[in-house]
Formats: sequence, structure tokens, C-alpha cells
Amino acid sequence: MNNYDSALLTDLYELTMLQAYFDEGLQEQAVFELFVRVLPPQRNFLMVAGIEQVLCFLESLRFTRDELDWLAREGGFHRSFLDWLRNLRFTGDVHAMQEGTVFFANEPVLRITAPIGEAQLVESRLINLVNFSSLIASKSARCVLAAPDKLLVDFGLRRAHGAEAGLLAARSSYLAGFAGTATVLAGQRFGIPVFGTMAHSYIEAHAQEADAFAQFAASRPENVTLLIDTYDTEAAARKVVALAPQLRAGGAKLISVRIDSGDLVSHARQVRAILDEGGLADIHIFASGNLDELKIARLLADGAPIDGFGIGTLLTTSADAPYLDSAYKLEVYADEARRKRSEGKATWPGAKQVYRTIGADGRMLYDAVMLADEPPEAMDQLPLLRPVMRGGQRLSLPEPLADLRLHAASELACLPDSLRDLKKAEDFPVEISPGLRALADQLDVIPR
Amino acid sequence: MNNYDSALLTDLYELTMLQAYFDEGLQEQAVFELFVRVLPPQRNFLMVAGIEQVLCFLESLRFTRDELDWLAREGGFHRSFLDWLRNLRFTGDVHAMQEGTVFFANEPVLRITAPIGEAQLVESRLINLVNFSSLIASKSARCVLAAPDKLLVDFGLRRAHGAEAGLLAARSSYLAGFAGTATVLAGQRFGIPVFGTMAHSYIEAHAQEADAFAQFAASRPENVTLLIDTYDTEAAARKVVALAPQLRAGGAKLISVRIDSGDLVSHARQVRAILDEGGLADIHIFASGNLDELKIARLLADGAPIDGFGIGTLLTTSADAPYLDSAYKLEVYADEARRKRSEGKATWPGAKQVYRTIGADGRMLYDAVMLADEPPEAMDQLPLLRPVMRGGQRLSLPEPLADLRLHAASELACLPDSLRDLKKAEDFPVEISPGLRALADQLDVIPR
Repeated sequence: MNNYDSALLTDLYELTMLQAYFDEGLQEQAVFELFVRVLPPQRNFLMVAGIEQVLCFLESLRFTRDELDWLAREGGFHRSFLDWLRNLRFTGDVHAMQEGTVFFANEPVLRITAPIGEAQLVESRLINLVNFSSLIASKSARCVLAAPDKLLVDFGLRRAHGAEAGLLAARSSYLAGFAGTATVLAGQRFGIPVFGTMAHSYIEAHAQEADAFAQFAASRPENVTLLIDTYDTEAAARKVVALAPQLRAGGAKLISVRIDSGDLVSHARQVRAILDEGGLADIHIFASGNLDELKIARLLADGAPIDGFGIGTLLTTSADAPYLDSAYKLEVYADEARRKRSEGKATWPGAKQVYRTIGADGRMLYDAVMLADEPPEAMDQLPLLRPVMRGGQRLSLPEPLADLRLHAASELACLPDSLRDLKKAEDFPVEISPGLRALADQLDVIPR
Repeated sequence: MNNYDSALLTDLYELTMLQAYFDEGLQEQAVFELFVRVLPPQRNFLMVAGIEQVLCFLESLRFTRDELDWLAREGGFHRSFLDWLRNLRFTGDVHAMQEGTVFFANEPVLRITAPIGEAQLVESRLINLVNFSSLIASKSARCVLAAPDKLLVDFGLRRAHGAEAGLLAARSSYLAGFAGTATVLAGQRFGIPVFGTMAHSYIEAHAQEADAFAQFAASRPENVTLLIDTYDTEAAARKVVALAPQLRAGGAKLISVRIDSGDLVSHARQVRAILDEGGLADIHIFASGNLDELKIARLLADGAPIDGFGIGTLLTTSADAPYLDSAYKLEVYADEARRKRSEGKATWPGAKQVYRTIGADGRMLYDAVMLADEPPEAMDQLPLLRPVMRGGQRLSLPEPLADLRLHAASELACLPDSLRDLKKAEDFPVEISPGLRALADQLDVIPR
């Protein structure tokens, strides 16, 4: 029912073009690149994610008999094409930035080199995967920058756009530096730490709030967080103080209280004072309720004594910038560079590489987008696109998420201060190489 | 890999609460309702969708041995609870609004009556499904109101938030009145008409644009739409005029041209003139490129001669309002009404029904939210929540999408003029019944 491993998860035009290429006998090698045209106004940088999902998709791409029968019956495709489609596998090469890498506008994050039909067919799902995962990694990275020493947890499954969005958002936010997620399936599938407390309904199902606290602690004593804002936040904090000796005597590890509504600065201050006075200085305050990086930054600037944040809806929908202006464009066909010239959507032609220059202070200085066969200007320029698949086969095992997370952290550490700010900064300098400019000029004079 | 039929697709706290209920022996009947607290400022009404997905989820909910083993190993749950979980099925009753029904703030669209553990456990996925599907149906309905006589097609898979979002957006937009989608899998799974043309890369892979047009028409002659903005839109329109006799002689049905960039009013006017002068008055103009209902309304108001629109990113991400303030709240436990009183998030208690009153002109007059056992004020008030599942069993076969689509169309036809406007209108009147107010007041004085 909710299984989306299907080659039909694509736009119809990918298949109509594929049939036309088949009919014409066009099957030379093509190079397509995936990039973002313009950063959303609310972002100073983006962070790549979703590459692992892309490789899984490419490895497993095939049409089943049922799918081919459906295409014959309902799709109006002809038999010889469908017979050919039955044996289609992805046989191309893939270059990609490592997940967790910071990137900017016009920088290819993924390059596909394959017979044109294969390279074209995968467009829809490749954009779908990389666009969303990178969107959430980028949003999450801003949360990490806003609260670098706090416990951040993804609470967003319920308002995420469907199941896959919930899962991939958990992965992307963990990659970018979150401590974990509330989504259990993300724990099972990706090995991400899973966090969870209780809902207001649990409190309401008990005649007395204090009974609910005691029963919950008895059921799951290892790691107890109590939700204290169902009726009166400060009164509930006083109940926690009164109950604590009994709960701890019973073996419960009382870790934190959660506040989910109201003025969080004021409540957190009052609750902190109540807990401290009650001898519970070791109990943390965890906050949630329609938070994002801007609200968190404001809470911390206002001195709210909050130790951790559950971030839900505004994270997993990336509500202030719910999409990237991502594109997947033909750059080379049959060894000739190609260029789309549509108004406002012109692209840089040719197979490209992105080189990054790091300054003496360890911070990013500038990037250069160059032709893949142009030599870098200096020895210390780092190429960001790396070969990850050749002839349809992965070149190495999937990188552990923990390693990608370390890479993301080091990327954030290398950001110039201006880009670390949540406010919009000057664009990071991305140079277009002379070779690339010359090639574009050369193509523009060819009549089509 | 991308299969999301798992009982672990939930928030951890649903499971920790379930274990606590199990340990305490709390398993009385509970009533939970799903509703939206406040409409997004960009919406005058919402449209329900995703109920069919909810029923499928409830019917098939069960924990596999692998999932239970994982919960034992990694989740810290105890064995007697997990043994009980192995046999857990959803055994409750469901009332729901028919998909396609227009609804407003504070109106329950779904009511679950079940033992509290079951009713609680399903919260995360129920919100996840209804929130997103309703979000997109609501956005799509606005597009339909903006362009009632035009062909509207969902182009949004690539920028949708993952696979499920792409699929469900295709379903919701079709339900709300779109003609179809570009997403092939939505055609196969839901029987939705699938539309598709070609990408710029197809044109670019040919040395000459006119060759690409001719080859494409030869490969798929039944229904030919040619993309004309890769290089120079008007020049391409003239190539279409020059080619048309040859293509039609070859048996191709030339239906339309597509413009995807630039000033669509100006291009559509010039292209219309070129086609008309070239004897191609029967060829339609189809437009795409970052469109939404506001841009479409402006294009039509400016007299752009456009016959159809492909709507992508801004539709499937509902970019101007990417989430609903949806909630799933405990209303009754063990025959006693319950009420969350958190600041700014207080809810109306008790099991409720929504009654709609239609005026003599066939338009919606007002709604009343009442206790489920309060009699309606008048005979002609229509109850919107209907029984759809009893004891975990559906009460009828799934309603055909075509029927739901007709229902949605009749709902849009009943909207008052002020709500049909794309601009924010006065809130539609939703009365809270005296019985409901009295119950809320009564609960507020009980100390918790």
C-alpha cells in the first residue's frame, strides 16, 4: 500500500521522451547535473543530503511485469519499447558531493553520466529525493547554529508531508547535528536515537495530574520526562517537586520536564526557580510548541533557562522556505556541451566540478565552478564532487550516518561568520571559471 | 526500502504512553477528534482529504515480530507489554467527513472511539495523513476557483516532500477538481488521468529544435504537446506552424504547445497570433513554470490566451501555507468529557458533531459544532460526520475517487461568494452550541 519502490514513480514525460529516444536510436552518453538555481531568501547556505537514497534508487531501478503491462494498457506505449524497458537498468556513473557538505547556488551537487534515456528517466525521483533531504538538512543546520550546545530533537512526523517526508526529515536533521528524533521508524531504519515523553491526553486521562506523573514514571523509569503544561505549568512544576523524592525512591530517573505552550521565557524561568528551590537543579527543562531557529535564538537571547528543544512542524515542512529551486539539466550530449537558454532559466553548460578554497583560519573563502577537465587554479582547492558509482555499481559501502554527521559538523565549523548568522548575509562568492564562460558564449551563437 | 507500512511509523511517546496505559490497566473507551485549530491566513476554507488512507492504515495496523524485537532490544519496552502489542489490532469506531467536504476551524473532521491505547497509538499517522492530504486539497480547490474552465494538471512530484507527498498530492488535487497529474504512479494506484509532454533536455539533445518536434510527434502521435520555450518561444511557434502540415499528414494529433518561462501573457498572446495566422486555431496553449492560483488569476485577468496550466512546486508544497494547525485531542475518557486547557491551545470537550445549514440559494449559511448527542436545532441541518468504521471494520467499500470528486465540486458550488475569493474574507460563521459551552465551563472548575 505505502510502498514507493516503483519505476512508475516518475513524471509521464520521462517515459514519453524515453520512447522517443528509443525510436530515434538516440542513446549516446549524456551528462546531467543537479543544482539549485537560487538560494531561498531565508538561507545563507544549503547542506546536501539524500545522496544515499539516490544511490539505492539507481541500484534498484527496474520495471516489473505489472508496471509494463499497465504502461501498455493505459499509457499508450508501444511493445518494442516496453520490451526494451523490461531490461533497462541504470548503468551510468555518478559523481556527488558528500552528504553534509555545504553548497551554494549553481553548484552541481550530483552529476549523472549515462546513456541519455537512463539519465533522463531518473530525473523526477532524483530531484524529489535530493531537494527534500537537502531542504531539511539546511533548515536543521540553522537550528544547530542557533543553539549549538542544546539538545535538539525532531518532533515533526505528524505535520511532515507524508511518511517519507517524516522519515527523511529525521535523517536529514540528525545528519545536520540534531540529537535525534521522535519518529520510531527512523530509529529502526537509520539507527537514529529516538526521544519521547507523553502527550496532554495522557495527563487528561487521569483524574489527577500527579497520578499521571507517578504512573508514567513507574512504567518507564529509565528516562522520565514529565509534561507540565496541561493545566497550570507552575503548579505542575510544584507537583514534580513534591513527587520527586517518592519517584526517585521508586527507582525512576527523573531527567526533565517539558513545556509546550505559553510564554516559554517566563514559564521556563519560573519553573527553573521552582525546581531549583525544590532541590531539583539537575532536572532539565525541555521546550516545544511551534519552534524554529528564529524563535529558539530569541528564547536564548532572552535568557530562557531551556536545555533542549523539540522542533516539529516548522522544521519538517521547512515552512519559511518549503522548497529549493532545484533543477536537473542536460549539460553534455554525445560529447557536445548543451545549454538551456530559456528566459531566466539559462544554465551553465558542460560537465563541471566545484572547487572550494579554505582560508588560513580554516574558514571557507570562495568556491569556483569549473569545467570538469579544467585544472584547478591552485593545489589547495578541494574538488567537492567525488565519484560514487561507476557502471551502475557503487564504488564503496554506504557511509555510516555517524561519519556524515561528523562531516556536517566540520562543514558548519568552516562557515564564515557572516553565513552562520540567521539573518540574510551577502552571497558567498562562487566564481564561474573562464573556461566555463567561454563555452557558454560559444554555444549561444549556435542556431537551434 | 521505501515501504512505510510499519506500525513503527509513529512518535515514541505514543508507545511509552501505551505501555503506561497497559501497566496501569487503563483501557476504557476514549474519544479523540482530529480538527484544525485556526485556518492559515491565506485560506478561507479547507477541504477534507486523506480519510481513505486513514481507513487503510487502521485496517492493516499490526506489529511484526521484527518490529517487536527491535522495540525490546532498542526501545526499552518490557516483554509483557510487547506480548500484548503483538495481538493489538484497531477495534474502534470511526466517524469522518466525506472526502471533498469543505470544513472550518474547530470542526472535527474525524472522530475515533476506541480503547484509549489504540486511539492514542494512531495519532501520529492520522494527523500525518489527514493534514497533508487536506492541505493539498484545499490549495487545489483555490486553483480550481481561480481557473474554473481550464485544464489543471499537477506537475509537482519533483519538489513534493518525498514519494508519498507526490502521490497523495496527485490524489488530493484530482479530488479537488484537477484534470490529472504528471505522476505515473498516481495513475496506476488511483486511476487518475496522467499528462505529460517533454523536457527542455529532449529539445537540447537534438541539433535542431524542429527535428526534436518531428521525432517526438512520430514516436507518440496520439496526443502531441510541443515545448516551445527552450531557445526562442515565438521562433519555435513559427516552426510548429511550418511543421504542422507534415506532422498531421504523418498522423500526429497536434494538441497543444507548452510555454514554461518568461512573460506568459506576452508570449501566450504572440504565440496565439502566430498559431492563428498559421491556421492552427485549434492548437491549445498550455503554460507552466512556478505557477499558483494567484499567478493564474492574474494571467487570466490580464487576458492571457492560455487553455491549461501545469501547477507544480507551489501546489504540492502548499508553499504559501505549508501546514495546517491540526490537532488530535482526547475529548472523552471512560464516559467523562476531557479538556486540554494549555494556554492558547484549549479545546472544546466531548464527542461532537458538525451541522451545516444551507440557505435557500443553495449556498452554505453557517455551521454549528454541537455535542454528538445534542439534537440539531432544525430539521434541515446536515450532520457532516458519518460513521465509516465500526469495531475496526469498514462499513462500506471505499468510495470511488470519481464520486468524491463530484462531491468536492458540489461543495465548491455551495461556497458563499466571499469564500470563493482568493483574498482573505471574513471567517465563515461556526457556532459553538450552548450544550458544548456549558460542558466546557463545567470542566474548567474541576481541579486537576
